[in-house]
Amino acid sequence: MERTRTNQASSHVGERVQLAGWMHNWRDMGKFGFLVLRDGAGTFQAVLDDATEIEKLKGLQYESVLQIEGIVAPEPRAPAGAELHDCKVEVIAPVLEPLPFEINKKELKAGLDVFLNYAPVGLRHLEKRALFRVSAEIMAGYREYLRQQDFVEIQTPKIVGSATESGANVFRIDYFGRPAYLAQSPQFYKQIMVGVFERVFEIGPVFRAEKHSTSRHTNEYVSLDFEMGFITDHTDVMAMLTGVMRHIVHRLKESRARELELLGIRVPSVPDAIPSLRLPDAQQLIFERFGEDCRGEPDLAPQHESWLCQYAEQELGSELLFITHYPTSKRPFYTYPDDQDPSLTKGFDLLLRGCEIVTGGQRIHRYEQLRENAVKWDVNPEDIDGYLQAFRYGMPPHGGCAIGLERLVMQLAGLPNLREATLFPRDLDRLSP
Amino acid sequence: MERTRTNQASSHVGERVQLAGWMHNWRDMGKFGFLVLRDGAGTFQAVLDDATEIEKLKGLQYESVLQIEGIVAPEPRAPAGAELHDCKVEVIAPVLEPLPFEINKKELKAGLDVFLNYAPVGLRHLEKRALFRVSAEIMAGYREYLRQQDFVEIQTPKIVGSATESGANVFRIDYFGRPAYLAQSPQFYKQIMVGVFERVFEIGPVFRAEKHSTSRHTNEYVSLDFEMGFITDHTDVMAMLTGVMRHIVHRLKESRARELELLGIRVPSVPDAIPSLRLPDAQQLIFERFGEDCRGEPDLAPQHESWLCQYAEQELGSELLFITHYPTSKRPFYTYPDDQDPSLTKGFDLLLRGCEIVTGGQRIHRYEQLRENAVKWDVNPEDIDGYLQAFRYGMPPHGGCAIGLERLVMQLAGLPNLREATLFPRDLDRLSP
Repeated sequence: MERTRTNQASSHVGERVQLAGWMHNWRDMGKFGFLVLRDGAGTFQAVLDDATEIEKLKGLQYESVLQIEGIVAPEPRAPAGAELHDCKVEVIAPVLEPLPFEINKKELKAGLDVFLNYAPVGLRHLEKRALFRVSAEIMAGYREYLRQQDFVEIQTPKIVGSATESGANVFRIDYFGRPAYLAQSPQFYKQIMVGVFERVFEIGPVFRAEKHSTSRHTNEYVSLDFEMGFITDHTDVMAMLTGVMRHIVHRLKESRARELELLGIRVPSVPDAIPSLRLPDAQQLIFERFGEDCRGEPDLAPQHESWLCQYAEQELGSELLFITHYPTSKRPFYTYPDDQDPSLTKGFDLLLRGCEIVTGGQRIHRYEQLRENAVKWDVNPEDIDGYLQAFRYGMPPHGGCAIGLERLVMQLAGLPNLREATLFPRDLDRLSP
Repeated sequence: MERTRTNQASSHVGERVQLAGWMHNWRDMGKFGFLVLRDGAGTFQAVLDDATEIEKLKGLQYESVLQIEGIVAPEPRAPAGAELHDCKVEVIAPVLEPLPFEINKKELKAGLDVFLNYAPVGLRHLEKRALFRVSAEIMAGYREYLRQQDFVEIQTPKIVGSATESGANVFRIDYFGRPAYLAQSPQFYKQIMVGVFERVFEIGPVFRAEKHSTSRHTNEYVSLDFEMGFITDHTDVMAMLTGVMRHIVHRLKESRARELELLGIRVPSVPDAIPSLRLPDAQQLIFERFGEDCRGEPDLAPQHESWLCQYAEQELGSELLFITHYPTSKRPFYTYPDDQDPSLTKGFDLLLRGCEIVTGGQRIHRYEQLRENAVKWDVNPEDIDGYLQAFRYGMPPHGGCAIGLERLVMQLAGLPNLREATLFPRDLDRLSP
């Protein structure tokens, strides 16, 4: 008999079907019992009232893998409006060890560390898997929108010959006896590929050997990068990103309504033009409105981002806020300086609900200027020769940005720690599972 | 004025448009000249007949970035059926250095090594970029099909705490003073995630520290992985893969007909059921048909794969061929043994036009059997504790496979070396660009 998935079962009322999945719950009432079977699609309830069948579950722990045949009967009190009767059970893979924590309750009670140690089983919790279906939908929406805008997907190397953006937070590899490094971002390669396709995007892992441990950082994360040529300035990139965000939110509402509801996620409405503040103006605003003087500081602290988003939501009606014109001295050497004030850049961050989720900007496209800047920033031009090559052979004005996938999911779902939005996080203490 | 892309220009006959792109070609005829401008969409010809405008190109090398305004005029002899007249040129980024090789000719004449050294400019060649648009379309087709089949996309860590599949070909990282490794495949994680979603896929980099240098191997490549639960055996995986391949070919024909034509790619027709041979039978066939006795060998050599594909094409009418039942001793410890003959596995390879492009199979899903096998294969169960955890807590029968993206592109396009199908290849000698 062909297997029916749980979400299809209630459309087979009166028929005999075969389900298969994990023993999500089992309430033994003596002569009968309620078994909840979970598969990739959802859950379905089976009523066992035959002693021989009930006997088969003796000694089995939750998460045992079962196959159940039975007749679908209407039952208004069952969550699916139907349940399985007259059941035959087959144990496909017994579980004999009690679970480290309960994964069949609405709320997962395990502390973060215990959860991460047992992620292979913990991720089976209905809310957890809903969260990572949201992640998957964000990636799909991102790609779909950019493909529509004629961006080409690329996959660039993660092993690189020289530490590029910053020597400080790079992982070293032994590459056949030579040193090599893990890419901190696809930045150089996506810029090179603007020379080929004009518009490119990539979704892939990036690696940062940050030695500090915060709830907003991990050492490997998923970066949603795009880069586009023939722009006027950074605002073209911001406009494209706004379109991306609108489409992602649209896709989530269309395709993941059930998961959003389960997780209590209210997606932000993305305005046609997300409000934008220059960093010096944002710092002035913080001083006037919140009384803290961070004017002249090169970056925003988490508290500042939080205040600015509070302001944007209350006064501008937006949960998203662009901050532009970060200081040139604090951005990478390839960042385009502002024409009016070269001490500031045509760089931006996008904040969502109090946390930065995107960094981007216009890049320098003229070879001489880029090379000079590299030297000024203590980057040896010989080390980045392949990158500079693209500029020697003609690059248009261009820019791009990178969304941190886990940051976006964390902010959407209101999670307190980035690790909760990461399938198998890597940090100072954690290399497995 | 808003920029028009080259592929849209001929639909603006009689209008003044602005194009922008790279100086792909320039034929100076004295009082006038033909300029071919290339952008991300294609090329378009502009006729320059004003001395002031022609003067602006003096000293400029190919690949200079230009903006050209002009009036679109019908011209049957021009490739697009129209060309640009009355042109005003603006130089956006001049190129002053001659190119390392010609990239505006139909054929790229550079040797592989020179090409790879200058990939940032070489990839701009029209055939090269067509090839990587084919790559992008394969990824899109792969994801689209699997999403339709209810697979969930995952992104798993590339830094792992222990060398898993084989200690021999793994790259070591210094992870905050501790040893860590680059993932040789997402194998363990995609299996773990079968416990969560039943069906998962991932497209991402994998790393193999193979010390030999062949035209079929590089040290970092893009792996198209999927894994599915509740299968009967490996043939369910093969059937899913067949569907994937059919869809990829369909997408290529629908969306990349122009690129296929430019590259002279004839896509294979994928039969409803790709023919399949057991390894021992395949070796017997080689012996009888081609006179070489490789019976009893644990794997196929490139020549054997070539002969088998020759046979399959001539006798079975298929350019694709499954080989199944590789020896248990030569497959990883998690491979499911054949029920009839446990010295063979429920593992398979898929060959295309004489080269393996996919490896897959059914996996062991019972905890005790898997743990015992690990020990037998000299893998310390403690080192793979996170992986085994999924099995302690119930795993269904499952299997999956991995397509090598560059292998597939190489075979489709008939390229002699995998490096030609890789954007920025990594091998024993090459870490940049």
